[in-house]
Amino acid sequence: MSAQAYAGRSPDPTQALRRLVDPDSVAIVGASDRAGSLGARTVSNLLEHSDFRGRPYLINPSRDRVAGRPCFRSITELPEAPDVVLVTVPADTVLPVLRDCAAKGVRYAVVFTSGFGELGEEGRRAQAQMLDLARESGMRLYGPNSPGLCNVNRRLGLSFSPSFRLDQRPGPIGLATQGGGIGRCFLQATERGMGVGLWASTGNEVDLCVADFVRYMADADDITTIVTAMEGIRNGADFIDAALRAADRGKPVIALKVGRSEYGAKAVQSHTGSLSGTAEVNSAALRQAGVIEVDDIDELIDTAALFARRRPAGTERVAVFGFSGGVCALAADAVGEVGLELCRFSDETLDRLRTAMPDYAGISNPVDATAHILIDAEIGYHGLKAVVEDPAADIVLYPFPCDYAELTGRIAETAVRVHRETDTPIVSVWTSDRLGEGWRHLVDGGLVPSRCVKKSAMLIRRWIDHGKWIAARNRLWRPLDLPPRGEPVQYAEPSAKRRLRMHGVESPEGGVAATADAAARIADSLGYPVVAKIVSAQVAHKSDVGGVEVGLADAAAVRAAFDRIVGSVAANAPDVTIDGVLIEQMVRERGFEALVGITRDPVFGPVMTFGLGGLHAEIFKDVSRRLLPVTEREAREMIGEIRSAALLAGYRGRPPADIDALVAALVSLSRFVADSGGQVEEIEINPLWVGEAGRGVVALDCVLSAVAEAHA
Amino acid sequence: MSAQAYAGRSPDPTQALRRLVDPDSVAIVGASDRAGSLGARTVSNLLEHSDFRGRPYLINPSRDRVAGRPCFRSITELPEAPDVVLVTVPADTVLPVLRDCAAKGVRYAVVFTSGFGELGEEGRRAQAQMLDLARESGMRLYGPNSPGLCNVNRRLGLSFSPSFRLDQRPGPIGLATQGGGIGRCFLQATERGMGVGLWASTGNEVDLCVADFVRYMADADDITTIVTAMEGIRNGADFIDAALRAADRGKPVIALKVGRSEYGAKAVQSHTGSLSGTAEVNSAALRQAGVIEVDDIDELIDTAALFARRRPAGTERVAVFGFSGGVCALAADAVGEVGLELCRFSDETLDRLRTAMPDYAGISNPVDATAHILIDAEIGYHGLKAVVEDPAADIVLYPFPCDYAELTGRIAETAVRVHRETDTPIVSVWTSDRLGEGWRHLVDGGLVPSRCVKKSAMLIRRWIDHGKWIAARNRLWRPLDLPPRGEPVQYAEPSAKRRLRMHGVESPEGGVAATADAAARIADSLGYPVVAKIVSAQVAHKSDVGGVEVGLADAAAVRAAFDRIVGSVAANAPDVTIDGVLIEQMVRERGFEALVGITRDPVFGPVMTFGLGGLHAEIFKDVSRRLLPVTEREAREMIGEIRSAALLAGYRGRPPADIDALVAALVSLSRFVADSGGQVEEIEINPLWVGEAGRGVVALDCVLSAVAEAHA
Repeated sequence: MSAQAYAGRSPDPTQALRRLVDPDSVAIVGASDRAGSLGARTVSNLLEHSDFRGRPYLINPSRDRVAGRPCFRSITELPEAPDVVLVTVPADTVLPVLRDCAAKGVRYAVVFTSGFGELGEEGRRAQAQMLDLARESGMRLYGPNSPGLCNVNRRLGLSFSPSFRLDQRPGPIGLATQGGGIGRCFLQATERGMGVGLWASTGNEVDLCVADFVRYMADADDITTIVTAMEGIRNGADFIDAALRAADRGKPVIALKVGRSEYGAKAVQSHTGSLSGTAEVNSAALRQAGVIEVDDIDELIDTAALFARRRPAGTERVAVFGFSGGVCALAADAVGEVGLELCRFSDETLDRLRTAMPDYAGISNPVDATAHILIDAEIGYHGLKAVVEDPAADIVLYPFPCDYAELTGRIAETAVRVHRETDTPIVSVWTSDRLGEGWRHLVDGGLVPSRCVKKSAMLIRRWIDHGKWIAARNRLWRPLDLPPRGEPVQYAEPSAKRRLRMHGVESPEGGVAATADAAARIADSLGYPVVAKIVSAQVAHKSDVGGVEVGLADAAAVRAAFDRIVGSVAANAPDVTIDGVLIEQMVRERGFEALVGITRDPVFGPVMTFGLGGLHAEIFKDVSRRLLPVTEREAREMIGEIRSAALLAGYRGRPPADIDALVAALVSLSRFVADSGGQVEEIEINPLWVGEAGRGVVALDCVLSAVAEAHA
Repeated sequence: MSAQAYAGRSPDPTQALRRLVDPDSVAIVGASDRAGSLGARTVSNLLEHSDFRGRPYLINPSRDRVAGRPCFRSITELPEAPDVVLVTVPADTVLPVLRDCAAKGVRYAVVFTSGFGELGEEGRRAQAQMLDLARESGMRLYGPNSPGLCNVNRRLGLSFSPSFRLDQRPGPIGLATQGGGIGRCFLQATERGMGVGLWASTGNEVDLCVADFVRYMADADDITTIVTAMEGIRNGADFIDAALRAADRGKPVIALKVGRSEYGAKAVQSHTGSLSGTAEVNSAALRQAGVIEVDDIDELIDTAALFARRRPAGTERVAVFGFSGGVCALAADAVGEVGLELCRFSDETLDRLRTAMPDYAGISNPVDATAHILIDAEIGYHGLKAVVEDPAADIVLYPFPCDYAELTGRIAETAVRVHRETDTPIVSVWTSDRLGEGWRHLVDGGLVPSRCVKKSAMLIRRWIDHGKWIAARNRLWRPLDLPPRGEPVQYAEPSAKRRLRMHGVESPEGGVAATADAAARIADSLGYPVVAKIVSAQVAHKSDVGGVEVGLADAAAVRAAFDRIVGSVAANAPDVTIDGVLIEQMVRERGFEALVGITRDPVFGPVMTFGLGGLHAEIFKDVSRRLLPVTEREAREMIGEIRSAALLAGYRGRPPADIDALVAALVSLSRFVADSGGQVEEIEINPLWVGEAGRGVVALDCVLSAVAEAHA
């Protein structure tokens, strides 16, 4: 973990942030009575809309009293060092205020003020000064450019938001975001009956960041379900570590990561370099840490609500219940489309359904109570009750097709009654734009209705998948936090292959020739056929400059190839240094072509990519990814989860690939990078020849970029 | 087109259905005063909640008066044959009532009653009798199992629904569904400010079906945008024909097709008794006819609203405007993820934005007005106005991050003002569950806010794609309506190849040998190497029974292969008849392996599938599909739209494939099937060898299933 991420961090994060989340004393710098001002709103949130029992201090150098209370001229005048100082003053006076805070011994400074890093270079310089101040003093910084922190479960608003007083429904969900918009929107899901206990919005994250609050919430007693929305992740390994801590404590982390497309990434201006690659690495990293990634704000809400209700086992089967044939079929469709299983009801359940419902109702799964339910709402109760009590129905998807005022009100009421009598989660969906009595019943009854049928099926899929992740989890795995060391150089192929061999990855026998005659001698000693390849650290794509010839069957062919290669490279790439021609045994045995790469992601560090060679990876993006370290377990998962994995397993009567050797190679590469202590920047083996079972793997070509070593 | 689909159809569909949609006289059979009954609700909808100026007739054999009006004892007693009769009586008396209607000369009978085809065999028999009656009499049937028809633009409810009086907002959108649930839900988008002019819900579709109403709405003056939700399509060619008629008249058809997964298809079948066909063929057919397919009910609504506002050109670029950095970035992400282009603003626009907005606002695309807009809502007006007036901004995505009561009210009001002053469509998204003043302004202002950021980007994508479809459309194309003729048999490979050659698709030179010596003689005359393949109409997978040997280099090898093949097939498949061994020239030239198939979809008839051979098609499902006929234009599209098309175009320095020959082969196959007049059931060529440019294509293996011909 980088020094920056750990700066000032206490060994016990819960204790460390407790006095921020639940402080004994809070000072507001810039306290004001001017209606609508940041200061006035902050004072009002703390003194009027919070249930704050600690000691508040109001600070304003030009006022004697604010909100009817005495006012201090500055932090230095306070009778104690407050746990938390809320800074609402204009940008140009923030730094002096923070200096006063640090001098006074304040624990946490929360800076609401905007106009720093998001504005450009000058703002970034100011932020660097803030960070220095924090490191030197031990004071932790929250913000700047933050709407503050809302501890709803304690009814405490350290915030200037005029919405704080409205968005207060306590609950077991904890939320950590960077910006305010997505977070505030999430909080407004109170309208759907969801309670959010804590919201931290860390703004520009000069010091405290989303990961710190994930870690806090992993340990906090009042939070069971953790939700994050992030534009950038400052330190990937730190975030993964926090997410794994939550997993250790049985708490799911649900994330919306903004900046997945090039446009989005540009918009958040969080990354440089390979932007499109980063989104895929992000998703792979989050998945590896058991973080449930979603695609939109409504999904964040729906997913949090379901997880807060119940934890998945990973083996759940789905039932669909409804009262419109079309909408039931749409829901069944959705279940199938996301690859879930509709359960088969027991005979007893079918009997109960037959008894409860009209003749023309659908009683196999999906259950369609039909419009008859509008005449007799109680069939909704008895039908749904039979379904949730079926031993195979682990979760129920219940779409409400439209609003029929008091009629749907009565039906929704029966759903709420069943919900209260069962542990089986009922995922209700309200598809109509008319939010009538039925909607109100579902909301008040704690069913947190979602709005899209198809998304609700995906929601259930994600929920079950997380259960699978927990069941299969490698609890010992922790990410390799390996900052780069030194300036990497590109190795020429022979020395790259030599280093790989030293670390357990085979490559063909061969040697480098300086002349055509030497090439022929090497080929003679290897046996034919051979391949000939240009050796030059400056040539990345050898074929493109005519630098590769294969299937050379005798010495004459080798000599001719040598001359052609040298001539062609000299003509096509006149500026490169030619270090000779590599002559290698040609692998002719039947096998598979794979590719393995390890690159350094700017956020998450070293990440391995695996796929089958050529088109599968390039056109169909059929690759799997893992953060390092890749142990045998991760390696087998990576190989098994590509879509073309069936090929390796022995497709259409072909013998299977040497999976064990392939696994060993991936593990060796991971170890190589780990052991290098940050020296390896990039490895790409493409193709990696994979023989049939028992025949091993051979790196046919490879690129290595690493800090140069004396023996290389 | 099948006889059934055209039974009783008038040559001018608009005129044909006009008297149903806007009748001069309407009779209600089963008229009643009993509160909550089907009959009473129907009477109330027609007499109280409609603005019906024609002649109503109430019919009930056991009442003298209903709703204060005189009542007739039966249809036969009426002074005229009404345009429309609404049938609300129980299932067992529906047929006698329909017989009376037919005898009286009624034009349209609308049957609300349930309990027919959806219940099973007996109900399907009753439906068959209804259809016979309709065909014999010329009376058209609507239903049974239908909630009726709502002509909102005429304020006429031929419906028993208690919601009819609530869901009345006239508008240019016409809706045709089968079941009622999805349709009613769609109508309730009135709550989002959407107006639906006509809703037909055709129920079990004994006679009139969704396609008839698509055709009606294609011609209707008050409808500009057509929406359908279908569980099954009774006659694919008929639906395509209706959709193309709408396209001819410049009206988009938007469809939600239920029954895409196996579960959904099963649910549809048990719910309506109709086949849903395969999802892939359905989607391909709809796309080919320019139908905009969506995945969920909310998407149906959003898409209809956008199309009703404006027609796409297909070249539109997108701008994002908002006031939360995170949500703006999420929207920019979404635009990128669906493959759309964020526009670049002109210098003038950038100047205007700089002037209008605070320093720290984002003024490149996405435009982030920041929370400053909460203090000064007018920057919302000036900023958005500058964006919509930028020449490159063709459509604006405007996400509202959350509700700040009157503050967001004021902001939304500025959006509505700009919306009224511009032709540029503004797709507003309201992500919060709190539907405050801002929401109300957007709804009342006609912006029809949607609810999901990512879905809104997909909505824009579908809109633009439809513009592309219009621009590239082959206006002459009409589907081949080719019912099967006779009982097909499987052809042995040599005769299948002979028939293909007769229709312009080459295969290797070769001959069938009955003995090893004959095989060697054939091979000698062809030249080496050759391949040898078992000939038997009963063997579908020749390799699986050891029935194929390739690369036979001389006569001895051919003789040995003959014996091995015959021995192996006899051992592996002792019951099949061996008709000899096919000896063929082996294609050794470098090329590509494609596959082409034509199968008969139960709903849409003959459909062609194209892909690259082996894994691309099998593992990655990378295939394209078209209903027949496939002309040169469709063939080129099919080849170009697979993801691996880049391979054929000359990938990484390889020469390109002979696309012209490939196109010619696809067209020939389509013609072969069309010319066969329904005799061909299935063709599969796999692999179809495709040479490099100028080298042609060769069917290396093929399966043909067709009605046997004398010369075959």
